[in-house]
Amino acid sequence: MVLTGPKQLEMQTFDLPNIGADDGLVEVERVGVCGSDPGIYSGSITRGIRPYPIILGHEIVGRIVQLGEEAKKRLDIVEGDRVVLEYAFGCGACRSCLSGNYALCDKNYTYGSMISCKEPPHLFGGYSEYVYIHPRAMVHKIGDSISPDVGVLICAVLGNGIRWLRQVGGVSMGDTVVILGPGLQGLAGVCVAKESGADPIVIIGLSRDKSRLEMAKRFGADFVINSETENPVEVVSQITHGKMANVVMDVTGNPSGAELALSLAGKRATLVLPGIYKGKKASLNLDEAVFREIRMLGVFSHDFRAVEPAIKMVRRSQYPFKELITHRFPLKDAEQALRLVAGEEGEIPLKVVLDPKM
Amino acid sequence: MVLTGPKQLEMQTFDLPNIGADDGLVEVERVGVCGSDPGIYSGSITRGIRPYPIILGHEIVGRIVQLGEEAKKRLDIVEGDRVVLEYAFGCGACRSCLSGNYALCDKNYTYGSMISCKEPPHLFGGYSEYVYIHPRAMVHKIGDSISPDVGVLICAVLGNGIRWLRQVGGVSMGDTVVILGPGLQGLAGVCVAKESGADPIVIIGLSRDKSRLEMAKRFGADFVINSETENPVEVVSQITHGKMANVVMDVTGNPSGAELALSLAGKRATLVLPGIYKGKKASLNLDEAVFREIRMLGVFSHDFRAVEPAIKMVRRSQYPFKELITHRFPLKDAEQALRLVAGEEGEIPLKVVLDPKM
Amino acid sequence: MVLTGPKQLEMQTFDLPNIGADDGLVEVERVGVCGSDPGIYSGSITRGIRPYPIILGHEIVGRIVQLGEEAKKRLDIVEGDRVVLEYAFGCGACRSCLSGNYALCDKNYTYGSMISCKEPPHLFGGYSEYVYIHPRAMVHKIGDSISPDVGVLICAVLGNGIRWLRQVGGVSMGDTVVILGPGLQGLAGVCVAKESGADPIVIIGLSRDKSRLEMAKRFGADFVINSETENPVEVVSQITHGKMANVVMDVTGNPSGAELALSLAGKRATLVLPGIYKGKKASLNLDEAVFREIRMLGVFSHDFRAVEPAIKMVRRSQYPFKELITHRFPLKDAEQALRLVAGEEGEIPLKVVLDPKM
Amino acid sequence: MVLTGPKQLEMQTFDLPNIGADDGLVEVERVGVCGSDPGIYSGSITRGIRPYPIILGHEIVGRIVQLGEEAKKRLDIVEGDRVVLEYAFGCGACRSCLSGNYALCDKNYTYGSMISCKEPPHLFGGYSEYVYIHPRAMVHKIGDSISPDVGVLICAVLGNGIRWLRQVGGVSMGDTVVILGPGLQGLAGVCVAKESGADPIVIIGLSRDKSRLEMAKRFGADFVINSETENPVEVVSQITHGKMANVVMDVTGNPSGAELALSLAGKRATLVLPGIYKGKKASLNLDEAVFREIRMLGVFSHDFRAVEPAIKMVRRSQYPFKELITHRFPLKDAEQALRLVAGEEGEIPLKVVLDPKM
Repeated sequence: MVLTGPKQLEMQTFDLPNIGADDGLVEVERVGVCGSDPGIYSGSITRGIRPYPIILGHEIVGRIVQLGEEAKKRLDIVEGDRVVLEYAFGCGACRSCLSGNYALCDKNYTYGSMISCKEPPHLFGGYSEYVYIHPRAMVHKIGDSISPDVGVLICAVLGNGIRWLRQVGGVSMGDTVVILGPGLQGLAGVCVAKESGADPIVIIGLSRDKSRLEMAKRFGADFVINSETENPVEVVSQITHGKMANVVMDVTGNPSGAELALSLAGKRATLVLPGIYKGKKASLNLDEAVFREIRMLGVFSHDFRAVEPAIKMVRRSQYPFKELITHRFPLKDAEQALRLVAGEEGEIPLKVVLDPKM
Repeated sequence: MVLTGPKQLEMQTFDLPNIGADDGLVEVERVGVCGSDPGIYSGSITRGIRPYPIILGHEIVGRIVQLGEEAKKRLDIVEGDRVVLEYAFGCGACRSCLSGNYALCDKNYTYGSMISCKEPPHLFGGYSEYVYIHPRAMVHKIGDSISPDVGVLICAVLGNGIRWLRQVGGVSMGDTVVILGPGLQGLAGVCVAKESGADPIVIIGLSRDKSRLEMAKRFGADFVINSETENPVEVVSQITHGKMANVVMDVTGNPSGAELALSLAGKRATLVLPGIYKGKKASLNLDEAVFREIRMLGVFSHDFRAVEPAIKMVRRSQYPFKELITHRFPLKDAEQALRLVAGEEGEIPLKVVLDPKM
Repeated sequence: MVLTGPKQLEMQTFDLPNIGADDGLVEVERVGVCGSDPGIYSGSITRGIRPYPIILGHEIVGRIVQLGEEAKKRLDIVEGDRVVLEYAFGCGACRSCLSGNYALCDKNYTYGSMISCKEPPHLFGGYSEYVYIHPRAMVHKIGDSISPDVGVLICAVLGNGIRWLRQVGGVSMGDTVVILGPGLQGLAGVCVAKESGADPIVIIGLSRDKSRLEMAKRFGADFVINSETENPVEVVSQITHGKMANVVMDVTGNPSGAELALSLAGKRATLVLPGIYKGKKASLNLDEAVFREIRMLGVFSHDFRAVEPAIKMVRRSQYPFKELITHRFPLKDAEQALRLVAGEEGEIPLKVVLDPKM
Repeated sequence: MVLTGPKQLEMQTFDLPNIGADDGLVEVERVGVCGSDPGIYSGSITRGIRPYPIILGHEIVGRIVQLGEEAKKRLDIVEGDRVVLEYAFGCGACRSCLSGNYALCDKNYTYGSMISCKEPPHLFGGYSEYVYIHPRAMVHKIGDSISPDVGVLICAVLGNGIRWLRQVGGVSMGDTVVILGPGLQGLAGVCVAKESGADPIVIIGLSRDKSRLEMAKRFGADFVINSETENPVEVVSQITHGKMANVVMDVTGNPSGAELALSLAGKRATLVLPGIYKGKKASLNLDEAVFREIRMLGVFSHDFRAVEPAIKMVRRSQYPFKELITHRFPLKDAEQALRLVAGEEGEIPLKVVLDPKM
């Protein structure tokens, strides 16, 4: 499915690329519709101009069909292996890449969003039967014990959660962790906090989130707060005997979430801010951050240091990950899937996936 | 000078306290009028209800007139020594104190603002001839080679700057540091950045700040930007070849400073936010913090780990610190000094001090 | 039981201290015989001259019998509460205390080792019916749901483990953690690594440690290595596909453990070194630390930031903590208990406790 | 000059390589004889088997004679620019490279030591008229204001010092820094400590180091200690009033230096250990590291984050860097230069350089 311009999606066919020693080809088993995909689809410009035509899709699970000899050695992967691909792979030469932060690569080398499919090897997106494995692509073997559906969650859901809350946010044992927004990233945050020894874990949602808040308990939440019927500041104060939270993450996608998050943070607490607020501004009383010496940390995406523990975590499999996949569509219904994720279909899904074999 | 209520300042006389083994008495040589003093004077409530009557003044330089035996041993100080007192001393028992962050003490034990002078030992403020040395007071010998005027700058000006920019903000060698606001904290920030090996150091001010921006160069600034005639984002981009700043500190006291600071910060940069914005809210596009993974750090006050290097820095004395003291008043003119610092007298001073001997 | 000099232990009776507003008295329910107690008993001088006579014992669980009004407010504890006391409490005034590291207090204010019982309030050790609660004592309510036996493990076993491996050592999710020595601190390390999301967790012991290595599996170990029959470097290399460990902790008490630990550490790994090697020197090839940029961290004791999560961890109670208590003695048999812990009785115990009510 | 085997050095001539879009060629103006070069020359195996024949030399200063179009854009460099090359450049694909630590690259891609000159493009070492610029080579423009002699010091002397002491070691303002060994790395450490606001800075040497200790003062040392006539522990204790050092770096190359360094470190101090001890083992009483919670950090080489501030530091040029170059030889006398650096010629040089134009 090729996005030829804003809201213009069409099925196209490309020649399979020639594979050399350093690159490869993966047959897509499943691709997730990321919460950021509807924005790309509708043409919003957040990290730069979109190089149409592009193939959407960066939450990619598939099987290796072809892989160069060098790549096999480097990746310890062979044909037939089930793998996931990270969103970003980086140019390898800019300051961000050289510093180990290829997700912030100056060239935005990423699947499904910032590389045109006009020229060969074309296949830089997951809404497709095949995806090209760039020599610098971050490919991880996940094994057959992890299903394609659950595999979709590894990078951009769990990998994000691990990087944001634990590796950057620094959740420690016994920390009070509060998460605003019981979407996929919120639920991922809950189980990452649990795996990090946080205690208690609090999740905040709205009345319409009732079933998700219930599910949050199965992912490790100790308390759920309905912010429409309860005052989160009062409840968190009561739970913590006035100390408030050590780490707060706002994944509501709404700037008012960041504002509430600041109020829930205790002395020397950390606010984890993965956005995205689509340019809407947050109105923050920064004096609160001063008098309590709060750290507010913008965080973006995942890398291999987060994806590797995510794979291990899924393999140990103590959480009901597969229940997070709520909708499956064939590739041809990608537009419907995008509308669903955009919230334009009434119901609010958790993870929506596309299956090229359907 | 006792503040008996908002904007009610009167001279009162108290009995000198009885000094035991653990406490002491200092004769005030000079006390600074802090930028936060006018707010306390006018009754603004930022960190809690003011316990009137209170004696204002926490930038205290003086000579020890009496000191208990235990205190002498603990502090390595004797009668006659010239000393400075830190703003905060902490209760020693709350979580902040036990964690080494006594400036964030739950009880707000501080000079000149949060302890009533109603009961003995009364003397908890610097607008006075004598100040009581609490057993937990953070007292530092500075020696006679540092003048009382310059001594006023050690804790709340240079100590703040060292803690904010270097110890929390983490300025490293070769970092591009941008400071917004060429007031005392801005100038202190410039020389702390210089002592930290930052290069280049940029300071941003307004047209009316012309002489201060010139002075900033003598404190180590490599570039000065007049934000009324130049576009700071463009200038910083040009200076840094598009990489923007590594560390940005906003000491404008105006939330628009924080907003501009965010725009000046490069990838994985640090924003140092010492406020105080007096409750005015900053309107921040947090997506910028996400896409560039920016850290925004609320910072508050100083402690002994910052004051000790501040004393050493002043002793090496390569900067024109004494020119920062622009006005001297006797105690009885404290009200005029407060109006001057509040910006109600037309001109904008740098450091205003009171001299009880005048 | 009072230690009047090296290896001179006798039962003495003291008057109960007078309790004021800030201090208190606890009736001892159980006290652990720490691995360092035999050394104190036999007069070894590690952290300074012992101020005989002293009452041994710093792993203290008991019920509050008397508590001053100020202390009640500060600690949120009342008479009748079951509590644990931390080893150290600090003078509150030295640089270590002011920095939040009271376990490194210059004055070594600690229970059971460095305060003489000659003068009132006498009761500074746990091998006793009652212990004095100093105004700065770090007292934690644990509740009746935690038994006195398990309570003994909270501070100096689990609190140590949390501080050493997680808070200082920085174990992260998916890290390969290797622990040398399956004693109490080794087993505590295993479950702390588990609670921190480490994967895999490896423990190394000797042939005689067979049952402990089995127990380690129940605490979360994924692999056990008998270093007498297997080559630890080879096994860890195989488990990690040559990457070796991210974090290695040596709790063998033998310098050869530190030497092996260095060989097991991968690039940019962390070595956690809680010693104590009793002055025996480790012979380290530091070039290994250079070429792999290894961090070697000396760590000592616990503080409230570690004890609070330890209490939470015990309350969730997923580990067979109570099986760690292998021996119980009445106070009068303290000498036998000390010999047992010193390894002079043939068998090697895990935790040995004294019960003043026996 | 090609090393065809241990101690077998001969002049050979190679064809200049063909330059494409991504690579280039530099004409060598000066190359430093690194302290590690004699070891490579004599065939010691530290980081792996040497792939003879190799061209020695990794402290390279020269002018660009040819540079591909892509490389020009990426590096912002053109023909004629004076540049320095970092020692390591990394494979770009291993875990170390992907984490931003290319100096620890699994493949040891480095100039002058680990790449054979048997095959084209041959020119991977600085003891040569020309050096090949690999597509991943870390090339920095230094400008004509920095002389070739001083340029030699930028990467492996000052870049090392900045990374070791400041970026990893974390020297802060007002820290007491002690450096053992007044060789090039010791002197570099002194001025890096100075630029970092350390105070006081102490350097320790032997009687034969008299002139270097004098020079250390010009680089910023406040105290010099002759460890043959003074007791360093006593002197540092006196200077610091018993607190001992915050940061200690051992660059003696002798394990006894590391042992002394540990004794000089205060509570929660940092030991910076760049080695190399050539496999000789240090005998450390690790209990000291435990009771004072000392961090011992292995550090290795430099990267662009250290080299960029090194260039800025040299440009500001407040230190007598050029006096550090004590000997100059033509390429043909490389063997003599190596013997000199190895200490086999009686006198002990500071920096020895080779000039291909001599």
